This record gives sequence, C-alpha cells and structure tokens, in this order.
Amino acid sequence: MSSASAPKGARDYAVANRERFRLELLELLRLPSISTLPEHRQDVWRAAEFVAQHLKGAGLEAVEVIETAGHPLVYGEWLGAPGKPTVLLYGHYDVQPVDPLDLWETPPFEPTLKGDNLYARGASDDKGPMFALVKALEALLHANHALPVNVKVLIEGEEESGGEAIEAYVKGHPERLAADVALIYDTGMPEVGLPAITYGLRGILYTELEVRGAKRDLHSGMFGGVAPNPLHGLALILAGLKDRDGHIHIPGFYDPVRSVTEQERTNWAGYPFDVEAGLRREMGIEALVGETEYPAEERRTARPTLEVHGIIGGFTGEGAKTVISNLVKAKVSMRLVPDQRPDAIFLLFERAVQQLCPPGVEVTVRTLHGGDAVLLPLESHWMMAASKALRSVFGQDPIYLREGGSVPIGALFDSVLHVPPVFMGFGLPDDNLHAPNEKFYLPNYELAIQSAIEFLSEVGR
Amino acid sequence: MSSASAPKGARDYAVANRERFRLELLELLRLPSISTLPEHRQDVWRAAEFVAQHLKGAGLEAVEVIETAGHPLVYGEWLGAPGKPTVLLYGHYDVQPVDPLDLWETPPFEPTLKGDNLYARGASDDKGPMFALVKALEALLHANHALPVNVKVLIEGEEESGGEAIEAYVKGHPERLAADVALIYDTGMPEVGLPAITYGLRGILYTELEVRGAKRDLHSGMFGGVAPNPLHGLALILAGLKDRDGHIHIPGFYDPVRSVTEQERTNWAGYPFDVEAGLRREMGIEALVGETEYPAEERRTARPTLEVHGIIGGFTGEGAKTVISNLVKAKVSMRLVPDQRPDAIFLLFERAVQQLCPPGVEVTVRTLHGGDAVLLPLESHWMMAASKALRSVFGQDPIYLREGGSVPIGALFDSVLHVPPVFMGFGLPDDNLHAPNEKFYLPNYELAIQSAIEFLSEVGR
Repeated sequence: MSSASAPKGARDYAVANRERFRLELLELLRLPSISTLPEHRQDVWRAAEFVAQHLKGAGLEAVEVIETAGHPLVYGEWLGAPGKPTVLLYGHYDVQPVDPLDLWETPPFEPTLKGDNLYARGASDDKGPMFALVKALEALLHANHALPVNVKVLIEGEEESGGEAIEAYVKGHPERLAADVALIYDTGMPEVGLPAITYGLRGILYTELEVRGAKRDLHSGMFGGVAPNPLHGLALILAGLKDRDGHIHIPGFYDPVRSVTEQERTNWAGYPFDVEAGLRREMGIEALVGETEYPAEERRTARPTLEVHGIIGGFTGEGAKTVISNLVKAKVSMRLVPDQRPDAIFLLFERAVQQLCPPGVEVTVRTLHGGDAVLLPLESHWMMAASKALRSVFGQDPIYLREGGSVPIGALFDSVLHVPPVFMGFGLPDDNLHAPNEKFYLPNYELAIQSAIEFLSEVGR
Repeated sequence: MSSASAPKGARDYAVANRERFRLELLELLRLPSISTLPEHRQDVWRAAEFVAQHLKGAGLEAVEVIETAGHPLVYGEWLGAPGKPTVLLYGHYDVQPVDPLDLWETPPFEPTLKGDNLYARGASDDKGPMFALVKALEALLHANHALPVNVKVLIEGEEESGGEAIEAYVKGHPERLAADVALIYDTGMPEVGLPAITYGLRGILYTELEVRGAKRDLHSGMFGGVAPNPLHGLALILAGLKDRDGHIHIPGFYDPVRSVTEQERTNWAGYPFDVEAGLRREMGIEALVGETEYPAEERRTARPTLEVHGIIGGFTGEGAKTVISNLVKAKVSMRLVPDQRPDAIFLLFERAVQQLCPPGVEVTVRTLHGGDAVLLPLESHWMMAASKALRSVFGQDPIYLREGGSVPIGALFDSVLHVPPVFMGFGLPDDNLHAPNEKFYLPNYELAIQSAIEFLSEVGR
C-alpha cells in the first residue's frame, strides 16, 4: 500500500459508505450525553461506549473507555507505521444542556434533517466533527488496511463541563500520548464552502458566585431600608466588574493583554465576507456592542471579555412576593487572551468582586474551570499540511481564523505534551452552538471525513 | 342586653371556647391558599368558603363568597344596632408562597405547635388575626345575641398578590361598605405583651422587569465582546437605580417625601426596646445597612426603598454553560411614603430604568400592583377607642407604631370610602412573615379576639 494511494481509496470508501456513516451519527446524536448535568451520567457513559465501539470497528487497537474522576475518556491507537509521524486526534462526545427546551423546534435528541441541516444537540459541537475523525480512520483502515501515519485518538466526555478529567489524564500520561502533531476537530468555518484553520483561541475562566445576606429571607416591608439585599449586591458587583461600554474594571486584568499584529489586522480586513454584518444578522441586533474602539473581529477574538451566564435568586414565580432573599447565585466567565493565565486572573477577579461587594452581604467565588488561550504560528509544517488537505477537499485555499471560543485541550497539548495542535473546523456561524436548535450542515460531515483522510495522508508523505 | 355587659359575657365565651377556636384555626391553616400561584386557585376558594361558613356560624347575615376577576372576597354583616356606629372589619385569608420549601422545619400547611408558637404558612399573616375577628363576632353574638355596633366584614383573598379584586369591589360598592370606622387586623406589635396601634404604613409599587438581548441565546466564545448581555444589562439597571449606600437614583423620586415630625422622632426614641438591636438580631447581621444618615426606624418606616425580590435568567443548573442568554426577568418593588403616589412613581421609575438600560438590550417594565401609604392622626376618637380596648385586654398602654410594610386596603378605605382605618396588630417581629417557618404566637390569638370584643364594645358605648 503506497501512502500516495491512501487518500483516494479511503475517500472513495467514505463516499460509498456515506449513508451508513450518516445513520451511525444519528445513533450517536440520540444519546443525551449532557456532561454538566449529573442526571445524564449514564447517557454520557453510553456515548463513550458508542465511540469506543466505532473505534474498534474502524480497526483501532488498544481501544479503551478510561474511567476518570469525572466522565470517561475514550482512547484508541494504531501504531503500525514506524518511522512515520504520530498524530494525536481529538474531539468530544459530550454536549451542552438543552434548556430552554420550549424554544427547540424539534426534540434535541431526535435528530431531524431539514434540507441539508441536521438538527440535534451536539450535531455541530462536537459529535458531527468528532465522529468524522472516527469515520476517516475507518475509511483509511478499511480501504488500505493501514494508516499513512501512526495515530492516537483521545475523545473527551466533559469538554462542555470543565474538562478536568482530560487535563489530569494528559498531565499523567505524557508518554502514552506522545505525538508529533495533534489534529483537533472542534472549531468552525465562516461560511459554506470556505475551509478554515483556526490559529488562535481564547482561554477561559468560569466561576460561580454566591452572594448571601441576612440569616433568613426577610419581609421587604418590615426590613426594607435597613436590610442587606444580596440580589442588589450582586447587581452592584456585576455592574462594577464591567461597564456599559464593555470595559472590564478588574485592576490588573488587562496588563498581560498583547496587542494584535499588523498581519492579523490585515488578515481580518481581507476576509471575503462582512464580519460585522454577519454578527449582526446572527444576533438580530442593529449595532454590535462592547468596546467599540476596537474592530469587531478583534474584540470577538483578541480582547478578553466578562459575561454573566446565569442568575437565580429570590422569588421568581408568577406574581408578586415581597421578600428580600438571603441568597443569590450567578455564573460568570471571562474569555482570556494569550498571557492571561486563568489562575492569576482568578486572584484579580476575586479581589475585585470582594471590593465591589456592598456592606452587609458576603460573596464567595469559586472556579468551575479554566483554560489557557492559544496562538499558533501560521508558518509551521503542520499548518501547511492542513492547508493542503483542505485545499484538496474544498478546492479552495483555507482562511486563517482567530476565534473567540475556547478549546482548552489545544493549550494543554501544546504546553504539557509539547504537541502542536492543528485546528480544522467544520461548524458554521449559524449552527446555534450552546443554544436551542443546534444543527450541523450535513455536507460538512463528509467534507470533514475527507479532510481528515487528506491531512493524515499529507502528514504521512 | 346592655352594651356595658357585652364585653364581659363575650370575653368569657371566648375563654370557654378557647380550645375549639384553636382547632378551627388549625383547619383554616391546613388550606394552602397561596393567592399568587395559579395552581392553588381551588385552595384559595376553599379557604374563602371556610371563612364564610364561620361568619354564618358566628351569626352574621348576608354572608356571601363574592366572585371577582381574581380570588373571591368574603362578605358578611350585622346591622341590628340602629343609631350605633358601623364598623368595617378587614383581614385576609390568602397566604404567601412557601418557597424555599426545604428551609421549613415543619410542613407549611401542617400547623405545628411548639411551645406557645404555632408554625404554619399564614399563621401570623393573616389567618390567625383575621380569624380572631370572626371568632370575636361569634363570641359577642353567641354571648349577647347582639353586637354593640353595626358590623360589616370584608375578608380578602389576594392581599399577597395585588389586591385588585378588593380595590375594584370597594370602588364599585361604596354604599354597601359605608361605615364609620374600619378595624384592620394585619399588622404587628413589637414584643410579647406590648400592644400596638399602627398609625403609619408605607405604600408600595411592585414591578416586573424583562430584559432582552439578541434574538436567541448565544455562545459566549463566538459572540462575547460584541454581543448584548441582558443579564449584565439588568445588573447595570439595578445598580444604577440604587447605590451601595441605599440611595435611590430615580430623578424626582424623593421630591414628594415628607420629613418626619419631631413628635415622631420623640416617639421612636421613647420605644421601650432597642430597635436597632432587635433588627440586627432578627437578620443575623452585625450592622444595619441603607441610608445610615437616617435613624434605623426612620429608614425602615418613613423612607422609601427599592428592593429586588427575584432574578432569573440564563443557565442556572449545576456546572458550567457558556451561554449569553437573551432574556432575564426580575421583580423589583419600591416601598413608598405619604405623597409618593404609585402611578406617578411608576412613570419616574420606568424612565430611569430605560435611561440606565445599556446599548443592545431592551427592557420592559410592568406594574404588578401598587398602593398608597397611610399616615393617620393619633388623636382621633377611634384611636382612643382602640387604645382603651388594648389597655383593657393587655393591662398596658399601647405603643404607636409607624410601620414599613404596606396594607393598601387602609389607604383604599381612607381615600375611597372615607372610612378612617384603625390598625391593631398581633404579629411579632420574629414571626417569619413571607419566609420559611412562619409562626403565630398563639396567646396573641386569644388577645386578638378579646381586643376586637373590647374595641367593638367601646365604639358602641
């Protein structure tokens, strides 16, 4: 089997098996593997077993569902190409929660095809792309009985809920995971037909705040005027952390932030689509908000942010209740940029929160998870291979994207394993990630399979 | 039957029937008549029927459960004392919601006696005191076969959820409800054994805010930095409305506020208990908060306030979800003081909210209910009668209280019917009104019955 023949046979195999590959993805999408909700623990496990079974079916060896303190990891390898590079493949099989459920037009775990779009929670993030990696390996191994490179596959089950298990595993198993390059399928592309390589991602620090007041709930008539109100205290804290123009007021927060380069500004300006118009359309708003003194693409990808994700406290039923609650909880995260380390930022954040906390109430802050930002050189050997693979599949040069989201695994592979990551992405801006009516543009499933075949073959040359 | 003999026979009757009166109150407390929750509609109705049945049993005439657009009113009358004054009696049979249920030490609708305290939702607010009025009428009518005055009874079923029904009814039936004085049982007393007449109450304006952002929920990685966040917008609004020192920043809000008189300051200073220490103890906090440049009792009763009662929006489950929600709701009320009219304050409030609303999000404000403040002259004939009645029952002069809560019915009787209200109160500061573990100090049930007997007799002299 010459490696030159590898892609063609495998790509033909993928085309011939298109229908089965789709049906298998539907099966996976029916498993409600919501990693952040304890009641879905068994579903998460079943999804891990499903992925492991397909890795075995593809011909991978040493396939294993690895128990962790959290949700399981799935591992598999094929090391039959001595002298060839080793590629570490990554995706995740867990999904976001589905609330608010009433806004879904079709049930989130009954995958529904409408035209070219496949609607289901996790279709785009990340079951579709992740499973494309598995199916690319099947295509290569079934068509050629060998892979063009050595491969290690590590599929995660808690990307949407902190990723502590994979972090511990990566730190504990650097030799098992040793590789020359990592191929990560968990990012996006700007529009149909335009392939993309992501070279930058933001880091994240996700926290939970609890604000407490009196020892019990109080009647606002009897105590209003002398009583601490934790809900109002939370408002003071959140309003103090970020102003109406998007500026974050945490002393020291912006100190490590790097300026973007001229090359990046030029790259953004050369995008063959209207970034701002696309964002406005996606959000249905008339004007983008935030730090308007920076270009939209810069503040969406190269500026740190602070967002409140949820607040719950006090009386939230129908009608009126004149209670001063003694507890409110909020979830707040910061997207971080290179050189803002989550641990260091947490200390600054916590200090700022405490200083903003008004008299009479107490606030506690804890980290749910954190991850470093990533910024990769555009000129590496691996970037070139990815670029060539995408050009071959899409018939078009890829665009280089700096993204606003976080794929902490990239930073982890980079800094802990010293394995440079390559991010090839197949999600579209209107895929409704983390929102009701998530969908995957189904032609991208096959293109993702083909792109992985080409990339592995290119690396093997 | 001379009116002079009326109280003694009736008071003896009440003592003789103490045990039955208690058991009947327990029956009423078992009905979960939560007026603000639609699922309890039938329970509210059953409580109204229960009260009507006991009014009939007491010997009242024209007893009626009056259907309204909301929850029913209960009416009864006894007009057999021509030439004597007519007293309008008021209480309410509905109760607050019970959440958070897990903080109750005994089930809220299984009344439980611990020592002298009867634990149940509504025990103190207001089923215990309200039912004491009914039982006082029974005692007078059964002991004397007549009342010392004419009586009209109007019992409400939505005091805890807006009171629109009674407002409409009072406005529509001024002749039926015509009276010389109203006796209202829905306030408190500062400590065991110290009777109280309330001469001032705050008004209220209760509102609901909805803040909306993008057309759908957004991923904070993809959109963070350019996306509107309604949860943060709400924080900016709430923090802008009131600062950390309790000052409300609504232009014009304080303009109508009257200064308190020297007489009131002297009255407060003469209270035979430490107001601040009591408040601190009740709340379990080290220092009272708010506008500390005003005395605690002034800011608790004679200063307007603004409180957030509940906030819900975004992801509030376990773990982490990186969503920028497009909707958050909050409940906000203001306690008002004399000359701050709810309608006028609403306009100022809404304008301030709109001005504080940051770019990219939209806020809507609606009123759930409103009511005027009340400030009564201390020297009236009716106040004297109430004072005499309480002195006779408690063996001690009553204290005159200005209260922070709102009993909108008082303002309604005063301004619409031109019937001056008299507030005699039997709730204690530690009764946990509107909170888990509400209780009623059971000896006050009998004292409330005796006080009503004495008041009606005194008015009839």
